[in-house]
Amino acid sequence: MHAKTTRFLVALLCCAWSVGAQAATKTATTKPEPKLGAAELIAQSKPQDWRGLDPENTLLMQLDSGQVIIELAPRFAPQHSANIRTLAKERYFDGLAVLRVQDNFVTQWGDPDAENAERAKPLGTAAKHVPAEFDVALKGLPLTRLPDADGWAPVTGFVDGMPVAADPRKGRAWLAHCYGMVGAGRNNPPDSSTGAELYVVIGQAPRGLDLNITLVGRVLKGMELLSGLPRGGPNMGFYDKPEQRTAIRSTQLLADLPEAERPALQVLRTDTPLWQQLLAARRDRREEWFVHNPGHINLCNATVPVRNQPAP
Amino acid sequence: MHAKTTRFLVALLCCAWSVGAQAATKTATTKPEPKLGAAELIAQSKPQDWRGLDPENTLLMQLDSGQVIIELAPRFAPQHSANIRTLAKERYFDGLAVLRVQDNFVTQWGDPDAENAERAKPLGTAAKHVPAEFDVALKGLPLTRLPDADGWAPVTGFVDGMPVAADPRKGRAWLAHCYGMVGAGRNNPPDSSTGAELYVVIGQAPRGLDLNITLVGRVLKGMELLSGLPRGGPNMGFYDKPEQRTAIRSTQLLADLPEAERPALQVLRTDTPLWQQLLAARRDRREEWFVHNPGHINLCNATVPVRNQPAP
Repeated sequence: MHAKTTRFLVALLCCAWSVGAQAATKTATTKPEPKLGAAELIAQSKPQDWRGLDPENTLLMQLDSGQVIIELAPRFAPQHSANIRTLAKERYFDGLAVLRVQDNFVTQWGDPDAENAERAKPLGTAAKHVPAEFDVALKGLPLTRLPDADGWAPVTGFVDGMPVAADPRKGRAWLAHCYGMVGAGRNNPPDSSTGAELYVVIGQAPRGLDLNITLVGRVLKGMELLSGLPRGGPNMGFYDKPEQRTAIRSTQLLADLPEAERPALQVLRTDTPLWQQLLAARRDRREEWFVHNPGHINLCNATVPVRNQPAP
Repeated sequence: MHAKTTRFLVALLCCAWSVGAQAATKTATTKPEPKLGAAELIAQSKPQDWRGLDPENTLLMQLDSGQVIIELAPRFAPQHSANIRTLAKERYFDGLAVLRVQDNFVTQWGDPDAENAERAKPLGTAAKHVPAEFDVALKGLPLTRLPDADGWAPVTGFVDGMPVAADPRKGRAWLAHCYGMVGAGRNNPPDSSTGAELYVVIGQAPRGLDLNITLVGRVLKGMELLSGLPRGGPNMGFYDKPEQRTAIRSTQLLADLPEAERPALQVLRTDTPLWQQLLAARRDRREEWFVHNPGHINLCNATVPVRNQPAP
């Protein structure tokens, strides 16, 4: 066994999907209907297949280990997004910490003293009460449908590059708890989240949370800085000791940063023929390595690519 | 917002499913048909709901950070399991390392010099060629079916506590690439894996790998030691520098350890009424926190509980 090649090929499956994959997918030449793989499709993309970021709806969370870029989802959670914008503008998150990493579930951050009324960091001018934003009207939503069966919801697809599920019978749609999605922790009352305490999905999609808690956005970059942290203890992943926590140096909107300091990322558009081609390439695997074609793709396996803006 | 409670409740969702959850699920008292939650069901389990480990089919991988316990799946991959047993008995894995951690995909370990014929560690008496073991006959398999729609396969369920998918039309069944499942890396030829290089799923289930590569078992304990490692670089998660690697001190079968050093774990049986009740509790969430009942469970969200053997 040539381990290098072996490793390469086991690796390839994810990489072909990600942007900046140096290892291009090999297009099978001996199989019928050879098509481009995901990496080739991305390599051949046009500038109009990508979009930039809205600086008013994108957060830069600075850790000692690097930057985490989070895109908010104001179409799905307008009031939470607005509150998080206020919290970021007033530097609420600066100096807070990652408090919890529960394996195969979530990484969560916020104020370690939030439960202590005297020591809790004030929310400033941010709202202390925000309505639950679990779903929105399906009608009028620019949903790019994914035809593949989901199990959790009758319809799935993509809106603004975010994974979405929907129920046409009820006329409702909602963000789905896929890997990298960011949500707002809440108490028993459905409307008890404010956006001051956030979590990100780091394991198998806990889709049972869908429609039960407000998702507010998606990590575009730096996910590995949140998913690769040491797990907390048996108390649901909460760190036992303060020194285990990861400090959050700052969290700011890109709009509040000097233009030169704003990461120039681009997100692949999900309302294009290229996105459909990418989904097809991911569904029907024609790379030489595959002996069985899955012929299926799940919403949460179809992560929307992000790249650094190419030099002009 | 009472953050402590908030955190508690967001936490609860996973915890109620895991063994040893201190925070018991609250049974709703105001909703119709109150039923026991998963944590209560496990707390009320009988000794016969659990089974011990086969020392000849369980590996203890010793890292500096702790122990990883891996249960092999000889029913599905008899020849890979036998080869891995041989490799472990001859201490092939001792001194190897975690070479790769690709975010939302796999952690992979093996011989860093495997590609170098002169420096590669010899496989000893282990087979240099092992047939692909991608699927087995469905007929006769003690499959506990999961009725919920999957998308990737017409049938899913559990055998010996492992997640399994099946196609009755073809009469075949196979292990599914869920979080924590361990596989044997291979090259382009389907029969190019030997079990000397292994990976474990650390993200959203890459079910597109099913039927394409041999799965050999499941991590029963210590998963967080493999999933919580720093991610490798853009080269598909391979570490750029040897010092980034995590050393594997040793990997032995429990059978080759003194009895006192064998971890006394138990796995919940998946051929029992209790397992059905647990699946139901996970599918229909009646805890107070939930405002929407998912009414669905996916194979890869239904991790089979593992516990320390209770004191007699």
